[in-house]
Amino acid sequence: MHIREFQEMMRRLYFHRDAERGVKGTYNWLADELGELGEALKGEDKEATEEEFADVIAWLASLANITGIDLEKAAIKKYSNKCPKCQKSSCQCTF
Amino acid sequence: MHIREFQEMMRRLYFHRDAERGVKGTYNWLADELGELGEALKGEDKEATEEEFADVIAWLASLANITGIDLEKAAIKKYSNKCPKCQKSSCQCTF
Repeated sequence: MHIREFQEMMRRLYFHRDAERGVKGTYNWLADELGELGEALKGEDKEATEEEFADVIAWLASLANITGIDLEKAAIKKYSNKCPKCQKSSCQCTF
Repeated sequence: MHIREFQEMMRRLYFHRDAERGVKGTYNWLADELGELGEALKGEDKEATEEEFADVIAWLASLANITGIDLEKAAIKKYSNKCPKCQKSSCQCTF
C-alpha cells in the first residue's frame, strides 16, 4: 500500500474525529502511542509490537491529514535514495 | 511509494548505522524527532513541518528495520478500511 493510500484511508476513517480533536490533541495522542510502542519494545510480544507500530504510523497519518501535509511527498522529498546529510546511498555521516 | 518500499530504502541507507545504534538508541532518536515535529507544528513554516514529518516516518521505518517488523503489513493488519475498535468505515467510537 502506498503511503498516500494509507493516509487517505486514515482520512476516510477518522478525519471527522481528528479535525474535532485538533492538532494539539492529535499530536498528544501520537506521543502517547509512541510511548506505548516504547513499552512494547521492552517485551517479547511481537504481535503487540506490530500493533503499536501500526498505531504510530496511523496517528502520524491522522496528524498529517489535519495539518494539510502529504506524508508520502514529504518523505520522498527528504529521503530519495540518499542520506539528506551526506548525500550517500549508504549513509556515511560521522555524527 | 509503498510503505514497504520506503522501509526498504531506509534499510539500504541506514541499516548499518541503525543496527549499531540499537533499538533503545533508535527509539530515543525517534522520540526526539517527534519532539521536533511538535515544535514545528507551533510555527507556520510548512516546509520545516514537512521535513519533520519525513524524519518521523523515516526513524519509525529504521526502528521497524532493526526490530524485524514489516511496517506495511502491521499497518494493513490493524487498519484495513475500518476502525479496529468500532469496526465502522467511518469511526463511530464514543471515547
